[in-house]
Amino acid sequence: MKRALGVCYYPEHWPEDLWAQDAAEMVAAGITWVRIGEFAWSRIEPAPGQYQFDWLDRAIEVLSAAGLHIVLGTPTCTPPRWMLDRFPDMLPVDAQGRVRQFGSRRHYCFSHDGYRTASAEIAAVLGERYGRDPRIAAWQIDNEYDCHNTVLSYSDHARAAFQTWLEARYGTIEALNTAWGTVFWSMEYSRFDQIGLPNLTVTQPHPSHDLAFRRFCSDQVVRYHEAQVAELRARTDAPLIHNYMGRTLPFDHFAVGASIDVASWDSYPLGFLMDRVDADDAHKARYLQQGDPDCQAFHHDLYRAVGRGRWWVMEQQPGPVNWAPWNPAPLPGMVRLWTWEAFAHGAEVVSYFRWRQVPFAQEQMHSGLKRPDNTAAEGLEEARMVAAEVAAMPEVSSAQAPVALIFDYASAWAWDVLPQGADFDYYRLVMEAYRALRRRGLSIDILPPDADDLSGYALVLAPGLATLPNRLARALTQTQALVGPRSNLVTDELTIPTPPGPALPGLDVRVARVESLPPGHERPVAGGGAVRHWMEQLHGSSQVRLATDRDEPVLVGTGGMSYLGGWPDPALWDRIISLMAKDAGLDLTELPEGLRLRDTSSHRFAFNYGPCSIAFDGRTIAPAGVEWWPRQTIARA
Amino acid sequence: MKRALGVCYYPEHWPEDLWAQDAAEMVAAGITWVRIGEFAWSRIEPAPGQYQFDWLDRAIEVLSAAGLHIVLGTPTCTPPRWMLDRFPDMLPVDAQGRVRQFGSRRHYCFSHDGYRTASAEIAAVLGERYGRDPRIAAWQIDNEYDCHNTVLSYSDHARAAFQTWLEARYGTIEALNTAWGTVFWSMEYSRFDQIGLPNLTVTQPHPSHDLAFRRFCSDQVVRYHEAQVAELRARTDAPLIHNYMGRTLPFDHFAVGASIDVASWDSYPLGFLMDRVDADDAHKARYLQQGDPDCQAFHHDLYRAVGRGRWWVMEQQPGPVNWAPWNPAPLPGMVRLWTWEAFAHGAEVVSYFRWRQVPFAQEQMHSGLKRPDNTAAEGLEEARMVAAEVAAMPEVSSAQAPVALIFDYASAWAWDVLPQGADFDYYRLVMEAYRALRRRGLSIDILPPDADDLSGYALVLAPGLATLPNRLARALTQTQALVGPRSNLVTDELTIPTPPGPALPGLDVRVARVESLPPGHERPVAGGGAVRHWMEQLHGSSQVRLATDRDEPVLVGTGGMSYLGGWPDPALWDRIISLMAKDAGLDLTELPEGLRLRDTSSHRFAFNYGPCSIAFDGRTIAPAGVEWWPRQTIARA
Amino acid sequence: MKRALGVCYYPEHWPEDLWAQDAAEMVAAGITWVRIGEFAWSRIEPAPGQYQFDWLDRAIEVLSAAGLHIVLGTPTCTPPRWMLDRFPDMLPVDAQGRVRQFGSRRHYCFSHDGYRTASAEIAAVLGERYGRDPRIAAWQIDNEYDCHNTVLSYSDHARAAFQTWLEARYGTIEALNTAWGTVFWSMEYSRFDQIGLPNLTVTQPHPSHDLAFRRFCSDQVVRYHEAQVAELRARTDAPLIHNYMGRTLPFDHFAVGASIDVASWDSYPLGFLMDRVDADDAHKARYLQQGDPDCQAFHHDLYRAVGRGRWWVMEQQPGPVNWAPWNPAPLPGMVRLWTWEAFAHGAEVVSYFRWRQVPFAQEQMHSGLKRPDNTAAEGLEEARMVAAEVAAMPEVSSAQAPVALIFDYASAWAWDVLPQGADFDYYRLVMEAYRALRRRGLSIDILPPDADDLSGYALVLAPGLATLPNRLARALTQTQALVGPRSNLVTDELTIPTPPGPALPGLDVRVARVESLPPGHERPVAGGGAVRHWMEQLHGSSQVRLATDRDEPVLVGTGGMSYLGGWPDPALWDRIISLMAKDAGLDLTELPEGLRLRDTSSHRFAFNYGPCSIAFDGRTIAPAGVEWWPRQTIARA
Repeated sequence: MKRALGVCYYPEHWPEDLWAQDAAEMVAAGITWVRIGEFAWSRIEPAPGQYQFDWLDRAIEVLSAAGLHIVLGTPTCTPPRWMLDRFPDMLPVDAQGRVRQFGSRRHYCFSHDGYRTASAEIAAVLGERYGRDPRIAAWQIDNEYDCHNTVLSYSDHARAAFQTWLEARYGTIEALNTAWGTVFWSMEYSRFDQIGLPNLTVTQPHPSHDLAFRRFCSDQVVRYHEAQVAELRARTDAPLIHNYMGRTLPFDHFAVGASIDVASWDSYPLGFLMDRVDADDAHKARYLQQGDPDCQAFHHDLYRAVGRGRWWVMEQQPGPVNWAPWNPAPLPGMVRLWTWEAFAHGAEVVSYFRWRQVPFAQEQMHSGLKRPDNTAAEGLEEARMVAAEVAAMPEVSSAQAPVALIFDYASAWAWDVLPQGADFDYYRLVMEAYRALRRRGLSIDILPPDADDLSGYALVLAPGLATLPNRLARALTQTQALVGPRSNLVTDELTIPTPPGPALPGLDVRVARVESLPPGHERPVAGGGAVRHWMEQLHGSSQVRLATDRDEPVLVGTGGMSYLGGWPDPALWDRIISLMAKDAGLDLTELPEGLRLRDTSSHRFAFNYGPCSIAFDGRTIAPAGVEWWPRQTIARA
Repeated sequence: MKRALGVCYYPEHWPEDLWAQDAAEMVAAGITWVRIGEFAWSRIEPAPGQYQFDWLDRAIEVLSAAGLHIVLGTPTCTPPRWMLDRFPDMLPVDAQGRVRQFGSRRHYCFSHDGYRTASAEIAAVLGERYGRDPRIAAWQIDNEYDCHNTVLSYSDHARAAFQTWLEARYGTIEALNTAWGTVFWSMEYSRFDQIGLPNLTVTQPHPSHDLAFRRFCSDQVVRYHEAQVAELRARTDAPLIHNYMGRTLPFDHFAVGASIDVASWDSYPLGFLMDRVDADDAHKARYLQQGDPDCQAFHHDLYRAVGRGRWWVMEQQPGPVNWAPWNPAPLPGMVRLWTWEAFAHGAEVVSYFRWRQVPFAQEQMHSGLKRPDNTAAEGLEEARMVAAEVAAMPEVSSAQAPVALIFDYASAWAWDVLPQGADFDYYRLVMEAYRALRRRGLSIDILPPDADDLSGYALVLAPGLATLPNRLARALTQTQALVGPRSNLVTDELTIPTPPGPALPGLDVRVARVESLPPGHERPVAGGGAVRHWMEQLHGSSQVRLATDRDEPVLVGTGGMSYLGGWPDPALWDRIISLMAKDAGLDLTELPEGLRLRDTSSHRFAFNYGPCSIAFDGRTIAPAGVEWWPRQTIARA
Repeated sequence: MKRALGVCYYPEHWPEDLWAQDAAEMVAAGITWVRIGEFAWSRIEPAPGQYQFDWLDRAIEVLSAAGLHIVLGTPTCTPPRWMLDRFPDMLPVDAQGRVRQFGSRRHYCFSHDGYRTASAEIAAVLGERYGRDPRIAAWQIDNEYDCHNTVLSYSDHARAAFQTWLEARYGTIEALNTAWGTVFWSMEYSRFDQIGLPNLTVTQPHPSHDLAFRRFCSDQVVRYHEAQVAELRARTDAPLIHNYMGRTLPFDHFAVGASIDVASWDSYPLGFLMDRVDADDAHKARYLQQGDPDCQAFHHDLYRAVGRGRWWVMEQQPGPVNWAPWNPAPLPGMVRLWTWEAFAHGAEVVSYFRWRQVPFAQEQMHSGLKRPDNTAAEGLEEARMVAAEVAAMPEVSSAQAPVALIFDYASAWAWDVLPQGADFDYYRLVMEAYRALRRRGLSIDILPPDADDLSGYALVLAPGLATLPNRLARALTQTQALVGPRSNLVTDELTIPTPPGPALPGLDVRVARVESLPPGHERPVAGGGAVRHWMEQLHGSSQVRLATDRDEPVLVGTGGMSYLGGWPDPALWDRIISLMAKDAGLDLTELPEGLRLRDTSSHRFAFNYGPCSIAFDGRTIAPAGVEWWPRQTIARA
């Protein structure tokens, strides 16, 4: 498949006489897609019911005439100020009980029925006007659900909807009391309308209550989202897309993705390094102008799964951003590297955010491909280079990876609700497994927890999977599987099962006790490496493969199903990956620091995230360098 | 006195067909006491006025039939959800003005008259039914006052009650204005109903106002508590108990203790190490699986005073807990060590929390003596071992210690209200004195500030005692006394007296000025050690015994009364304890790191909290080891 | 001009029979000014409209009779409790939406019309009674605007007033929408009454909105202030004064100063070191008992500008204070040093706070010249020594400094609203420039951003000046000017101008891109020093004078106008100052650590802030030492 470049463009921010020139320059740079409209509600409908499509019609015409494919966004993440006159109670409420006010974006509570209807209506109006317009080649629904932590809202509307949701889930209050175990601390309810939201409780709320609220909040996003999907489906055959974010866990991205055609995400490697990568200062210093070597790849692989194979980068960082605690510039070449890495992981389109830096408002310091004075910024030349390279390259397409990693949003909620150790974090655990695989040169597929056919994989990892679905448990028997730590130890109501987990087919192992360990504390493992953060006491008769120097089992099982009873440090991960790879017949490559590989069906790509040149496989790869070569070359080596 | 073991049990959490087996296993393990009922209100009274005693009757019967003595708790720390229908305004309010919601426990404001009455009523109902029942051998009132910081509530009920309390204390508004000095910043009041609570003021509230509120809040706990005491006293002769916590300062434990028969506390050494022990990372790493070597002993000694000699450990950690930031497992042997240490300090009963780990709700990760699947956890075997040792041991009883240390809740409030240095903390100061004494092998009695007979003590310390009561001042002249730092420097309205403190009999010393010093700053003392945190400028003619290398007096007085004008570092504490012991004719023992002693009337006990074996007094004591030998052996040595 | 000493005194806190003795002792110590009344509203007007002037009349009589000049304060920073009965809605509201309650001071919202009127009324009443009384030699209006962060209030009154202010500024809502760029994120308004305050928005508010609110809040202080000025001007010819604080940025001090005669400030060197000096721990440790060597001088120079040459220290720290996180005592001699430094910078009066330590209320631990028991504290003797020295000294008067530094409150707001790097701080940037100049022995004038005659200066610095006013831009061409970093990069609506800044006469330089750098990251500059925090990409043809080792321009221009495109570390500042001084023909002196100089018209003063003696210019200056000598001596050297 040919890969394409895109750009995010806001005609409403610029004089109309610039539009045609902008479009021509986009095309000249090799850009073929343009996203518009997702923040423009106040221009599309300046007053309730008074639509102004003339400017948008002209913008579409100018862009399309230049040869660009258009993605049109529904503008529902930025309700205009007049919407508050209609629905004064539509604002979200934070966990401290404070109403979150108008004056930026995403000022809506997902549980407000009126606003959900209004969102569906504007989607319908846009679909009606442009749904069959061939210039509109795709649709984006809303923008970045949960940006600014907006999925969890503690409004009165949320409370009422939660009570209804609970009644639908549990049927009777007795069933709920039993499922949760509300007899503890006399928390028993006699009616659903007695159940509040789990914020501002005197101390920690009931974990089953809290987890139910997380599920409810995720479901509310899906419900909100599907209201727009329904209106658009009725009016267009163009693909529907949502643009997700990085390390965003409060809603189930797979569930939102189920009703659309393409997943996309907004990739800001330097912002994320500062803002949401778990790493020490030395790592952050080393990758300050490049971004973390695994963070982008992880999300590429995740959203490939969310999109069931079809995915884009809808927003790609082109230069310094404005929103991270500190905002350095990318090393020259990194914009190209990030773009190629996305293509190597299977992206159909990489779209830069944004065409031109806007000289006003919150994002005025966010760079674009062009500067506010319309001169070219550094990113534009790199985009142009990628476009030329893509044009010259034979098509490459994504291959199934040899290794799979399960990712489960509900597990993130469960462990967030009941961490047991202050720094237990599901995403971090999964990411550390992902890094360990990538350090050894492996390409990885990320799979949802309801995956039921793993036969194509040599090895499947399921760290931290709170509750193992039955069909996944069965599928894991088709392959080499590494489950744990902290996997299948709770029911889906966040209670402890009897008999205790992990209850894995082919293993006799039970977690009798767990310990969380503060930073700096490690349990050395005999032979090298250590357990940190989390240590389980494993009982049972399965063969012990790794144990601590106190002789406590850490890894049990040989071949087929294995269970890992502690959180490995990097050295222990390396040992475990080596053991697993040997069982699975996988070849590993010891990669230099900063180098990462990705195999497509035909090519091996290498990316140098480090600040120095790297010699690898007979090549010298410069900092920010990207190299690729046919896969058979490797096979021969 | 024979020492006994107990356990906390929740029949309402388990199928009734397990009860008899549980009771039999408890007895088999050597357990003789069982606490029940304190969280079971929603099962005792599922709807207002509809009592369900059948299950409780049967549980009592099963437990008693097995030979167990029962402690029955009033369930008032967990009001059922229906109570909120009756009293929607009963919820506590935090210092930020947020109502603290239902969904966990302790969701009541101590100043709500309706809920106080309802609490007394349920106590009366239980007393009526079981007060003369010989199977109920003791009563627990409520559970852990101030758990989750619930003593200070800023509700409308609290404000109204505070105004009434102020009127009772001061009589006239003029008297209050004069006592506090409200002329400062024009804060003068003309009516009591003008006085708000001291939260959310533009800047620091008036310290006398703030201290009055602390006194009021403590008094509200006492009032609430005594309402239940009154109902039970009328209906039972069994001893009344409350279970206090560790390092809990917002209410006067002596005042609550005055109306009951036995003090008890809930001892979680590993949780406390993570959560409320002042120590550096190296100390916390060293004692991660043992707990701090002095924290338990301190509270044992404190609650022996609160119970006027009669005290229990009502809840003893049996394995990893769930509520600390990190939750490691105890080193094998520590459950036994903690139990024996409590006995050596005079505990009548040590009761483990809980019998079986509950597989649901907030405490599902809190271990018990048994696991959720009913297999035995590590703690059970250690409990059994203690039971056997107790059975084999001649009775030992507590002796008056040679050294006393004054502990005063009002001083904690005073210095919290007016710290003058950001890290000035009364508890930490007292604990550092306690540690210094313990490092030299001394057994210690803790005494309340109204102690008036100190004739039995060789040495008495009163660090940080905000206001020295007259009768204590007189009693201190009966012995060697070390007063200070920051002792008797304020009136009980938290104003500076004229003439300035400390105004001690037998000394001519005045504090002319004080300094607080940031972390890392020390004033070296000539001859060794240093002052840190707090330095007073001492004027007067009393003999200077220790001074800084700038020749500023630090310790004045020789023999009889001494005053300490700075916060010592450990090296200086050691010098001071040596000087004081010499004056007092006390023998000191230099203890190895991690070893602690406790002398009963007949025996010396040694406890090894350290991670390595320790050679001491001709013995080798293993990690988590406990040794004891008759005291005369020592005298001979 | 003869310099004078003063003291702050609160007759209402003390028995009347002490007053005469106090006054006599003040005079005996060489004190000639006394400030009274600024917190005494509840004694002047105990109930609404019931004035009690008798005690104040007698206090004035006693003080004046002893020979003291009186500063009378309007008591408006401490509205009495009854004022709240009149205006229950007068309280300020914090950014979290919490009403800030009565019980300390400054409990008023600047936007409450009723309270502003009441404040003007009490000023009028006092003016009516004492305005023509020759014993009242000066007036203080209110006390420390913004103390306890009270300028930014988010009340309903503030919102309504803000909407009115916006309408006055922008005229039409369309003009506002255009000026701000509300098209971004569909934030367009259709009426002024739709515009809320910029707090509690879902994410960062619109920066133009936020900056407008900052401007509004500053204007509200000016409006409040001028209401009192107007009443007093009509009734007195005595000079009007306000006492500002250190590092207080939320309102434009120049604008408040425009309507009064003398600026004053409250100087607490040890409190500020702990509380608001940017420095590492080693620096804070070194100057713990002396204060930062530049913080006082900076504010002296700032308030000399605010007072258009006339300024005082209204409150001078005399010993340990109570309000900093830690409160050490000054090194002996520092009270004298601080006093003399103020005189050397041109202070007319240095007034100690307070005469006697008050034994009650919030400031009971704040030392005075006398202790609560009326004995002399350390500061009194040092004050006496200064008085004698002043009496013996020939008059010295302030000279124009050779170097000027622009200070602009609106720039502080702009960069606070839009920092782009988490630690970008305007005050810190300006202070680092000031330190760099002072380390080389220069005396400095601070100037407001509307300065238009710089002809007397050899060198003028304008770091971080968000928007360069046209007349200042013109004036800068009269001298050697160093502009930047981050200067003139935004319009006064906080948008990016086209063409991009800095747009400086005589330079062809444009900022194409900026980067913020996290702590620890530096861009080394070729030849020595480095850029940290902030790095600009400079385009244009002007000559590059300094560049990074990646050849990125850092300093452009030679002679006349220069632009600095990064935030220098101290070593780079030293290089830059050397280059600039050479261009400007300025002599520099390399000063030993801790030594600072200040040149008056006739003398050079040297101050040793360090803990050790310093040899300088043939003299040995003790710790806390002050030396002065005629300037011609230096010229000869």
